[in-house]
Amino acid sequence: MAIPTLKNLIGGQWLESQASEFLEVKNPAFDETIALVPQSTPEEVNQVVAAAKAGFEKWRHTPAPVRAKAMFRFWEKLDKVQDEIVEIMVREHGKTRSDAKGEMTRAFEYVEYTCGIPELMKGTYSEDVGRRVESFTVREPLGPFVIIPPFNFPAMIALYFCWPLACGNPVIVKPSELCPQTMTRMAEIAQECPFPPGALNIIQGGPEVGHQLITHPDVVGVTFVGSSKVAEIVYQTATGRNKRAQCQGGAKNHLVINADSLLEKNMDNVVNSCYGNASQRCFAGSNLLVHEKVFDRFLSGFLEKALQFRLGYGLDPEATLGPVVSRKSLENLLGFIDRAEKAGARILLDGRHPSVPKYPQGYFLAPTLIEAEPDLEIFREEVFGPVRCIKKIRDLAEAVEIVNRSPFGHTAVIYTENGGQARDFVRYCNTGQIGINVGTPAPIAYYPVGGRKISFFGDLRGRANDAVDFHTDKKVVVCRWMTPFA
Amino acid sequence: MAIPTLKNLIGGQWLESQASEFLEVKNPAFDETIALVPQSTPEEVNQVVAAAKAGFEKWRHTPAPVRAKAMFRFWEKLDKVQDEIVEIMVREHGKTRSDAKGEMTRAFEYVEYTCGIPELMKGTYSEDVGRRVESFTVREPLGPFVIIPPFNFPAMIALYFCWPLACGNPVIVKPSELCPQTMTRMAEIAQECPFPPGALNIIQGGPEVGHQLITHPDVVGVTFVGSSKVAEIVYQTATGRNKRAQCQGGAKNHLVINADSLLEKNMDNVVNSCYGNASQRCFAGSNLLVHEKVFDRFLSGFLEKALQFRLGYGLDPEATLGPVVSRKSLENLLGFIDRAEKAGARILLDGRHPSVPKYPQGYFLAPTLIEAEPDLEIFREEVFGPVRCIKKIRDLAEAVEIVNRSPFGHTAVIYTENGGQARDFVRYCNTGQIGINVGTPAPIAYYPVGGRKISFFGDLRGRANDAVDFHTDKKVVVCRWMTPFA
Amino acid sequence: MAIPTLKNLIGGQWLESQASEFLEVKNPAFDETIALVPQSTPEEVNQVVAAAKAGFEKWRHTPAPVRAKAMFRFWEKLDKVQDEIVEIMVREHGKTRSDAKGEMTRAFEYVEYTCGIPELMKGTYSEDVGRRVESFTVREPLGPFVIIPPFNFPAMIALYFCWPLACGNPVIVKPSELCPQTMTRMAEIAQECPFPPGALNIIQGGPEVGHQLITHPDVVGVTFVGSSKVAEIVYQTATGRNKRAQCQGGAKNHLVINADSLLEKNMDNVVNSCYGNASQRCFAGSNLLVHEKVFDRFLSGFLEKALQFRLGYGLDPEATLGPVVSRKSLENLLGFIDRAEKAGARILLDGRHPSVPKYPQGYFLAPTLIEAEPDLEIFREEVFGPVRCIKKIRDLAEAVEIVNRSPFGHTAVIYTENGGQARDFVRYCNTGQIGINVGTPAPIAYYPVGGRKISFFGDLRGRANDAVDFHTDKKVVVCRWMTPFA
Amino acid sequence: MAIPTLKNLIGGQWLESQASEFLEVKNPAFDETIALVPQSTPEEVNQVVAAAKAGFEKWRHTPAPVRAKAMFRFWEKLDKVQDEIVEIMVREHGKTRSDAKGEMTRAFEYVEYTCGIPELMKGTYSEDVGRRVESFTVREPLGPFVIIPPFNFPAMIALYFCWPLACGNPVIVKPSELCPQTMTRMAEIAQECPFPPGALNIIQGGPEVGHQLITHPDVVGVTFVGSSKVAEIVYQTATGRNKRAQCQGGAKNHLVINADSLLEKNMDNVVNSCYGNASQRCFAGSNLLVHEKVFDRFLSGFLEKALQFRLGYGLDPEATLGPVVSRKSLENLLGFIDRAEKAGARILLDGRHPSVPKYPQGYFLAPTLIEAEPDLEIFREEVFGPVRCIKKIRDLAEAVEIVNRSPFGHTAVIYTENGGQARDFVRYCNTGQIGINVGTPAPIAYYPVGGRKISFFGDLRGRANDAVDFHTDKKVVVCRWMTPFA
Repeated sequence: MAIPTLKNLIGGQWLESQASEFLEVKNPAFDETIALVPQSTPEEVNQVVAAAKAGFEKWRHTPAPVRAKAMFRFWEKLDKVQDEIVEIMVREHGKTRSDAKGEMTRAFEYVEYTCGIPELMKGTYSEDVGRRVESFTVREPLGPFVIIPPFNFPAMIALYFCWPLACGNPVIVKPSELCPQTMTRMAEIAQECPFPPGALNIIQGGPEVGHQLITHPDVVGVTFVGSSKVAEIVYQTATGRNKRAQCQGGAKNHLVINADSLLEKNMDNVVNSCYGNASQRCFAGSNLLVHEKVFDRFLSGFLEKALQFRLGYGLDPEATLGPVVSRKSLENLLGFIDRAEKAGARILLDGRHPSVPKYPQGYFLAPTLIEAEPDLEIFREEVFGPVRCIKKIRDLAEAVEIVNRSPFGHTAVIYTENGGQARDFVRYCNTGQIGINVGTPAPIAYYPVGGRKISFFGDLRGRANDAVDFHTDKKVVVCRWMTPFA
Repeated sequence: MAIPTLKNLIGGQWLESQASEFLEVKNPAFDETIALVPQSTPEEVNQVVAAAKAGFEKWRHTPAPVRAKAMFRFWEKLDKVQDEIVEIMVREHGKTRSDAKGEMTRAFEYVEYTCGIPELMKGTYSEDVGRRVESFTVREPLGPFVIIPPFNFPAMIALYFCWPLACGNPVIVKPSELCPQTMTRMAEIAQECPFPPGALNIIQGGPEVGHQLITHPDVVGVTFVGSSKVAEIVYQTATGRNKRAQCQGGAKNHLVINADSLLEKNMDNVVNSCYGNASQRCFAGSNLLVHEKVFDRFLSGFLEKALQFRLGYGLDPEATLGPVVSRKSLENLLGFIDRAEKAGARILLDGRHPSVPKYPQGYFLAPTLIEAEPDLEIFREEVFGPVRCIKKIRDLAEAVEIVNRSPFGHTAVIYTENGGQARDFVRYCNTGQIGINVGTPAPIAYYPVGGRKISFFGDLRGRANDAVDFHTDKKVVVCRWMTPFA
Repeated sequence: MAIPTLKNLIGGQWLESQASEFLEVKNPAFDETIALVPQSTPEEVNQVVAAAKAGFEKWRHTPAPVRAKAMFRFWEKLDKVQDEIVEIMVREHGKTRSDAKGEMTRAFEYVEYTCGIPELMKGTYSEDVGRRVESFTVREPLGPFVIIPPFNFPAMIALYFCWPLACGNPVIVKPSELCPQTMTRMAEIAQECPFPPGALNIIQGGPEVGHQLITHPDVVGVTFVGSSKVAEIVYQTATGRNKRAQCQGGAKNHLVINADSLLEKNMDNVVNSCYGNASQRCFAGSNLLVHEKVFDRFLSGFLEKALQFRLGYGLDPEATLGPVVSRKSLENLLGFIDRAEKAGARILLDGRHPSVPKYPQGYFLAPTLIEAEPDLEIFREEVFGPVRCIKKIRDLAEAVEIVNRSPFGHTAVIYTENGGQARDFVRYCNTGQIGINVGTPAPIAYYPVGGRKISFFGDLRGRANDAVDFHTDKKVVVCRWMTPFA
Repeated sequence: MAIPTLKNLIGGQWLESQASEFLEVKNPAFDETIALVPQSTPEEVNQVVAAAKAGFEKWRHTPAPVRAKAMFRFWEKLDKVQDEIVEIMVREHGKTRSDAKGEMTRAFEYVEYTCGIPELMKGTYSEDVGRRVESFTVREPLGPFVIIPPFNFPAMIALYFCWPLACGNPVIVKPSELCPQTMTRMAEIAQECPFPPGALNIIQGGPEVGHQLITHPDVVGVTFVGSSKVAEIVYQTATGRNKRAQCQGGAKNHLVINADSLLEKNMDNVVNSCYGNASQRCFAGSNLLVHEKVFDRFLSGFLEKALQFRLGYGLDPEATLGPVVSRKSLENLLGFIDRAEKAGARILLDGRHPSVPKYPQGYFLAPTLIEAEPDLEIFREEVFGPVRCIKKIRDLAEAVEIVNRSPFGHTAVIYTENGGQARDFVRYCNTGQIGINVGTPAPIAYYPVGGRKISFFGDLRGRANDAVDFHTDKKVVVCRWMTPFA
């Protein structure tokens, strides 16, 4: 079968790129090229922005209940192709079918949330703010918004586009060049709903395309999700052009195992948080902070579970853990482990170079656990793959101190049954999300998501009502009619 | 074809009633019996309440996002049978296909609104209402609610059940005995979504069944829509048993034609408000209050349009106006006209005993217009059929005075281009809804609906967020954990 | 000093009543008459309603920010006379100065909340609910509302009047005939703010006056707080006249002492919940449900604390527990104890006929504790004074079962440090409020208050945003202007 | 009298600056120096940030209702010194006493709005987002925020500090160096409330101090109000350090006089919008776009009113128009007029070098009106003083086109009685605020304020609920307790 080249969706048309450079999309379980992504040309980027700008006129004057109906139709059509999307995702990302299905479940809630757009777009109305003077707000869409999702949730985070779109803005998605097919297929589905030409656009390419988008004068704002380093650049670049920006960066999430926690009941949750989706998620548990009273018992339980993962191709029903997304990523991870080892950290579980006979070319790394201190690189830096740290702690105060010393501020988790300690953990951890006995406390679509410190740049968070605020402006009208009643 | 007898939906089962009495559902265009409605027995009413109560347990503990998914599924399945529902409705109600389709469009928005239930059920959370004391509200469903819809919108108003259901309550619908098949068919669709047994229930019958429901000790509350007389009885009966009640009554809506209004541009809207759906809707314009400066011009334009209606069977593509719902209603309407005539009112357009050759048995009344003064019965009382009044007015003050003298307080409409006069009309009319150049200002599902004076009994309005409040309680938790952080 | 006779505040004037009957206000620590309350005549009731109705016109058209300024002024002026109000309250009610001060602190939050009325009265606005059709809601006040507060919080609950008033309604307060001076004095303060004549009115009297108010055709709605028996009558009487009603009834609150609870840290809180304000509050703990594992330890700690109360006159700095409000109440309480004793309940602490040498005429009852089973009258019925029950329980399931078997549904409290058990207690107790380690979980003014079952009749709760909804209607405007832009 | 030198408020202490450079505060009616502003040293800026950071700990853990009480106290105390503040303002800014009083009225609403902080800080709570999983948001303050207000409303805009402060953040205000005494005096008042040390801080100085503040690593965010040029720099500088920023820039507001508008009734409003506060406000009307049908009549009425202004010192009861704020500003304005004249614009009213005998040294410029085309500098650029343009238009479409061609997007105003044209004006003008027969449509404090294009940089607007969002983060908690009920 010929390797397909992905197209751009510009103004309602699927157009072949005139690119001269192409990036390879690989199936990470086989190291096989399965698609080519054009590095779209500057002209094409201009074209897609122009198409979005042109599409604004019609879409912006489409009543919110009619926009909602298009979202409902998208929900219905996407539902019918769920299995197909899941398989596309597994092929280009490597995650297991079960992880991909779980992603789709959450992803649907994004569509579902934005189906409620007529309610969410309501402004407020006050009679008589002064005598015979009324005031009200009209929530208005603003123009072309850009979404730059990461590779790790090719369906879910790409669906962030539902927010600007439902709000009445045209939107341009630049899919991750590592896993672009999932979004591309979803855009085909969306075209059938239909959304008017120019409302939803896709432009393929790598960072250069992203940069051109966020510096383009006709782009109003950008939502980025990715590493802290790039998030910061995107935030500064976009706001440096006076645009709106909300940029989700990386994470280093601490899971605190309190002395009173129900170890056995929670162990699956802990292990899944650490290694699920091959640890490629910003809500993954990274550093385990375990109370000294239960450290040994916890560790033996954890290792037992961690050893049960079966590596393999995500569509293989036997596989419970897939490869990481790319060879580069695998090498990066091995480098982290090697440096930790050299720095004196104790490798409690070594997942390097696992034997995966059925998929010998795959980018596999088995679960790895390292006992490390907070000053080590492996403990401080984001490690996007199944390499986790563990550290013994004396009490909750020490745990919170470690959480707050991290440059990241995404998420912290406590395992405890004690209401008071959980309460104070919520209060004193300077992170954007907190889990209580929930290892990956990703808010549902109805709650906004965002970190602190280098995990998030911006003020309005992603998703939920914050994303409605981000993608609209509240025009204020002050009105006094002069002709009285009689 | 045998005449079908409608069944009850009790605890997830469609059960034949043991009734000894049956009511006839007629096709009003043919005076033909098309279905039989059992007057369900007291035992069956007890049974349906018991089933609802039993169903509460499971449904109440179903997470809101999961309940939302069932609502989405209902949306999808109902969408597929729209045409079928439309035809059922036309057959039992008599409205034209076009009116029925219009009703379905609005009806869908009810389902769409309640698909947003996870957002709508959010309570609030405050840390530190006092030092180390948190407070929050949990919105909880309450138990079996009853919906008693009227005949005139057999799909739309029956779908009020979406609110209690989406909120997590079991719901019992007693369809109108005149037009019960529409709701009954929609309940079949709902069963496939599926909702758990006992979540949605149907009990067939007339007022006796309604009375037993609203006096049953296990019923929490009732939403009624119908005449003011019955609405008042239902309100007093239900609240007399300490239940929640919101009861929508009748209407007598005034359309005010201001001297500056754009007569030609608005005439279709006015005429449709007066006679659309054979005037059987609570938002229909009833009394035309026309400024003396434009009275003659308005009247001739109105009569011209009103004469263009073609009476007939709603599924007949030529028909633009159907029969009224029942022979009894027709006779009632003729009585109104006769009494007005005797009282000296001037009949400007006489629709009595029209010739409708293809449907000689139908309950037809052609558009009728009567010039009448505010003290006449025909001007004061609700007339549920195509008999409308007109009156010349001197100015807006007189119009508002007439609006506010009515015992009803449902809706008032002004036709004008003048912002100030419209503003004051909004301010000074004591009605629950106001239209500005909109003859039937029925709020969309995202806005709450309710009248004043004898048009509404209760505090929380129907639909939108008010209906969420009506069908839930805001449990308040005050929480102080004693174990500190460290 | 002559005993003063209280006046009515009608349309901005303090008027002497023409009553022929007068009720005595007693200082319960001395059994002395300190004021006379006229049983206002039917003519005076008509007069006050007429004054309120007349006052509506001006107040309703006062912009919300201007109404807010009057509320701010009231805050300022009330603040200056806090000590005076506290002393009035102690004299007529009997509570200690410390309890009265605590009440004032909470009471101020009612005024503070309603100072935010411009924000709270906002309606919503949507452009393009259909093409070129806008929709918005205008929150409108409705007319005269009645407040009938109980005796037990003469300042705080009387200040419920802030809600209808701030919303733009005229309000009529009928103070408790047992403790009317507090509200009367506060109304004097309010007059200075000033509120326009007829905005705030006071009519003195007993139940007959209340009955006439809630049946008067010009009264729109009523907020009542008192016993379940009267609350039910008021609810049925008012709604039987098609009015709005929210009626807070009595309570029988269970405090559950879980096996893991921090007994010592919580004991003050438990004992204060049981006996503070001489147990005359609807949030008071009534029945102690104590886990068998800690029963003995809890009981001895509880008795030790309970014995430390020093009975006396509330303004006497030595007193930590005042008398009950009236001789009738005292006799009623003694009857409860006697019947419990006869029914075989074990009196663990007997507070009957305590020696209070300095105040021999006072209506004193010392803290009383009775071990009783759920079927006993003393365990089931509301007992409004310092007589509490205790019962040993096996587990939380038994406790919740007891809570839910009660005909009351006001409040349930759990003492525990366990997050999961607290969560399920919140979920499974069918009460309107829940405390976690908070014995009297009265929501602050920013949270709505209301019980279930016979503890509350209505749908919208008291205070907070619910009370704004209760005292306003959301008029919906649907607007389509016909003249386009150009 | 010695000229006072302003102090800094750092950590609760009023400290004399160690500055070596001082800026002069002038009374613009007399060209007299009335105070000296230290250009605070870099050490002092570090010190104030450190004090704010230190103050965060205590203030952040102060319950919101307690913070609200401090705001109420501030309201009360500020109310008592209103007249004093007004006079300080007139002396340093030049506006008339009447303008200053008007400013105070609006300014109080800022304090009033933020008194409602316990309501505004509420997060949301959802039970069962999944089975047995709860989710809620905690709104948290974030740390030191900076407010940099402009000179033109020395009280009102400085009071933006109420938002971060009420939210629980420490705040640092750098008053305008032209009019710093107003804010400085208000801070003295605030100290008495009291706010804890470090909660509210003042640092005096010019742009250098501002720059150091917004680049300081411990500052979380900045609210700036001033010219577009500086607003853009502040936005890019702050976001370039990953901070939050909302920066209000300049304006060039168009007032459109529609052919149907009630000229006489509106003329005072138009003229006041143009010249009130000596045109030094971002909501001032700048360019008059007058329909050709009414141009001549409008112009003669306008000129008649404009000539009635009496220039003078703001505390002089005869004065109705004060000087501009500085000599530099006056020269700048004269330059604008001269260049316009040279470019061929027609000066219809020439206010240059007016005779103001009592105040010969004042920076006076009388109302000036210039007929100009959109491409002229005087028509395009912000002119912060009483120099306005007028232009004849053919229709509303032309007016809207001119509005939208401007680089500014702050406000547009239409004078009309036509509901439809007003509606479309609202819809099609790309500005942040719209007035309908309101020349200076400044939203009240309860509505958010913000422009578009170069008039605003950021996403969340100033004031109202947007400012609460800006000054807080919505921490999301996902919670699953493991211990069940029984």
